[in-house]
Amino acid sequence: MTARITLIDGRPAETLDVMDRGLHFGDGVFETLRVDAGQPRFLHRHLQRLSVGCERLGIDAPDRDTLEGEIRALAGQAPDGVIKLIVTRGSGERGYTPMSAGTRRLTFAWPSRQRDDAHCRLRLCETRLAHQPLLAGIKHLNRLEQILARRELRDSDVNEGLLMDYDGHLVEGSMSNLFLVKNGALLTPDLSSCGVAGVMRSVVMDTAQELGLHLTRGAVGLEDLRRADEVFVCNSLMGVRAVVEWVAHKTYPSGPVTTRLREAVEKRACDDISQAWYSR
Amino acid sequence: MTARITLIDGRPAETLDVMDRGLHFGDGVFETLRVDAGQPRFLHRHLQRLSVGCERLGIDAPDRDTLEGEIRALAGQAPDGVIKLIVTRGSGERGYTPMSAGTRRLTFAWPSRQRDDAHCRLRLCETRLAHQPLLAGIKHLNRLEQILARRELRDSDVNEGLLMDYDGHLVEGSMSNLFLVKNGALLTPDLSSCGVAGVMRSVVMDTAQELGLHLTRGAVGLEDLRRADEVFVCNSLMGVRAVVEWVAHKTYPSGPVTTRLREAVEKRACDDISQAWYSR
Repeated sequence: MTARITLIDGRPAETLDVMDRGLHFGDGVFETLRVDAGQPRFLHRHLQRLSVGCERLGIDAPDRDTLEGEIRALAGQAPDGVIKLIVTRGSGERGYTPMSAGTRRLTFAWPSRQRDDAHCRLRLCETRLAHQPLLAGIKHLNRLEQILARRELRDSDVNEGLLMDYDGHLVEGSMSNLFLVKNGALLTPDLSSCGVAGVMRSVVMDTAQELGLHLTRGAVGLEDLRRADEVFVCNSLMGVRAVVEWVAHKTYPSGPVTTRLREAVEKRACDDISQAWYSR
Repeated sequence: MTARITLIDGRPAETLDVMDRGLHFGDGVFETLRVDAGQPRFLHRHLQRLSVGCERLGIDAPDRDTLEGEIRALAGQAPDGVIKLIVTRGSGERGYTPMSAGTRRLTFAWPSRQRDDAHCRLRLCETRLAHQPLLAGIKHLNRLEQILARRELRDSDVNEGLLMDYDGHLVEGSMSNLFLVKNGALLTPDLSSCGVAGVMRSVVMDTAQELGLHLTRGAVGLEDLRRADEVFVCNSLMGVRAVVEWVAHKTYPSGPVTTRLREAVEKRACDDISQAWYSR
């Protein structure tokens, strides 16, 4: 296993200007992509979300062809790994006023990744997510809520922490999105007030539609979690993962809807790779 | 005017490790101090708030004597300037789980600073602050809300933007705390759900108590702003600054209570310097 590769604005680098606004204010967005056989999965969806995030924050998005070329080249050096992309507003002065010398991009490639467990054990976190529609959905660099949530799981063998908002609605996992299955239909939290609209979440929703599964995006409460026949979480790295236990509350089967969706999403990932091959 | 000086863990540096969690997640806290005649103003209050912030986030605070020595030494090189201190959880790996090789401190000194206008013109921002009691009060590195607020003021000659929460309560300025004066008594927003509990705010509150002024910390609405006899904002750099206009709504006099508090705070700043001299 070779080491992490890092590029800043396309050039190898291990250090960053101390005045970068990403450091000072979390003034930027990021993406985490899975690489399979040297191909970045769902690259266009990631670039699309990045562009939405930049627009929301008023950051000039980097040139898309440059980004795509850089990520594809890095993926070749990280064939079964992970690529992380950070875009910040760049270096600025002391104040909040969003002025900078120009957007900065950092691309990281890890050549391999930890294999995930097939199944997931969830715990409900005490940390709750604040309602902030101005930042909801995008994957920005202000992630202290997630850090507080993960901190609760230290010294435990729980894989994922589930977060509610202050109204008591379930929103997402600390690093994943949540889906419940009841009587064959899917339910996933609405993310217009908080949460990250994951790329894998969008893939699952599209796949569910293609499979003719009924899906509701709306308010999800603890009672829905209690009554669910199946539960799964998803993110770009692990794909769809069955939840087998809500710790201290309930166990779930790794059921047929989850299995069907996981297989369809994996197949789709393969198709995506094929398309990528053809489009080069 | 000489250039900015930056130290990372006490050593001169212009660049930072790309894996610092401050960059990746905003995982840290900061302080901005004013330096007068080579002395950092209200240093102990700043170090105290920093320590509260570190504790809230579960970050090991840097050794206090080391920090104090470093800031005092830098202040000597920035006699009428500004010192900024950032403490991050340090370098980590890709995930949110708060693990790192150890806390990192960055100290910045700017030898001089812009002179502030004596008076302030306020505008109400459309950006609102989210309720997040877990992060309220501390000065952490997740500052996208403030950036969105400052962004609204671009291309205007307004000095400060005022932020409400989603319940319609006034919270603070984008870079300052807010005080209203009505019939000689002070009113300032409660910050238990959102906002930064400024060091200068604490100085003003202590000073008001010493002067025998009545002060309420509670819910503040637009109607209070409309009815106020005097309004002022404050932060560590500008001290107490009279608000002379709520743009398009009302003008205020730079009144007697504000003047009295400003003078008492400035005197206190001098005392603080004297004490610092004696305690060395």
